[in-house]
Amino acid sequence: MFHVEQFYKMDLRREIREIPDYPKKGISFKDVTTLFKNKEAVRFVTNTIVENFKEKGITKVVGLEARGFVFGGAIADRLDAGFVPIRKKGKLPSAVLSESYELEYGMDSVEMHSDALEKHDVVLIHDDLLATGGTAVAALNLAKKCGVENIYFSFICDLEFIDTPNKAILKEYETQVLVKYQ
Amino acid sequence: MFHVEQFYKMDLRREIREIPDYPKKGISFKDVTTLFKNKEAVRFVTNTIVENFKEKGITKVVGLEARGFVFGGAIADRLDAGFVPIRKKGKLPSAVLSESYELEYGMDSVEMHSDALEKHDVVLIHDDLLATGGTAVAALNLAKKCGVENIYFSFICDLEFIDTPNKAILKEYETQVLVKYQ
Repeated sequence: MFHVEQFYKMDLRREIREIPDYPKKGISFKDVTTLFKNKEAVRFVTNTIVENFKEKGITKVVGLEARGFVFGGAIADRLDAGFVPIRKKGKLPSAVLSESYELEYGMDSVEMHSDALEKHDVVLIHDDLLATGGTAVAALNLAKKCGVENIYFSFICDLEFIDTPNKAILKEYETQVLVKYQ
Repeated sequence: MFHVEQFYKMDLRREIREIPDYPKKGISFKDVTTLFKNKEAVRFVTNTIVENFKEKGITKVVGLEARGFVFGGAIADRLDAGFVPIRKKGKLPSAVLSESYELEYGMDSVEMHSDALEKHDVVLIHDDLLATGGTAVAALNLAKKCGVENIYFSFICDLEFIDTPNKAILKEYETQVLVKYQ
């Protein structure tokens, strides 16, 4: 549908700012806003994700609040799909489905409008960063609650050094990751 | 750059769900998630905004958290621009500029990374909904603090029946609104 003019290799890792000891000591935070503001990086990310999923018949791109909305919207537009937000508890105005996930201490939950997805939808779940996989698996479960069977994932970054049971669940799904931190 | 295949008139208002008495009695909330999930509406919105701004030389699209990120990212991608998020207080990991705005009761503030925009940038500030204009003017002031002179606005909806001093400020800037509620 779109004519892709440039499709070259780009070292995306260099576009992601690392912030030492944020949000707490010992954590090197991956700041994707430096990637977002670089137009070449924006085009490279959308081109790469679209190239990977263009033959899958994606009907809805599901983006995770809030950074997952940025490329989620762009990919939905490029793949000729709709966009569905998954938000933190209490942010969506109509009837919702809810899924809880573990935090370091305690639990939290995310929500999706209960009429957002239908059984026949082919869904791409997108977020900027895969860390423990808690919200990604919550998103998977929300899609499944709607009866969706065809589900794919895309992440800009994967913190591969964090190994969790959630990541074993995600391994059953075709997943695209652009930058891997080992 | 992109070949626009469809460019027809669409009644976007029909794609926006109205939720009576939300978040409180007497307010008819405009729920744009029903527009987001409709692929024809997504294409219509991006096509219409891109058509309007494609000759302006936009270098950065600034999106307001969180719903403004969805089309903000898509428009940045289509206009071959970078994307800059403006977030609620305490969400951005690096050095920020901050602007406060009035709420119904009290004040709140939004932040932008201090290195997000440069003087020569041509900026399109995007949000889904213009109500009092508080966050839009805060965004304008953040861009001005970076020395930016060329600033445009786009909103999916404008609640025109809400008249505020902020809206008088925004009138000095070229602004595209897709759905007007009178």
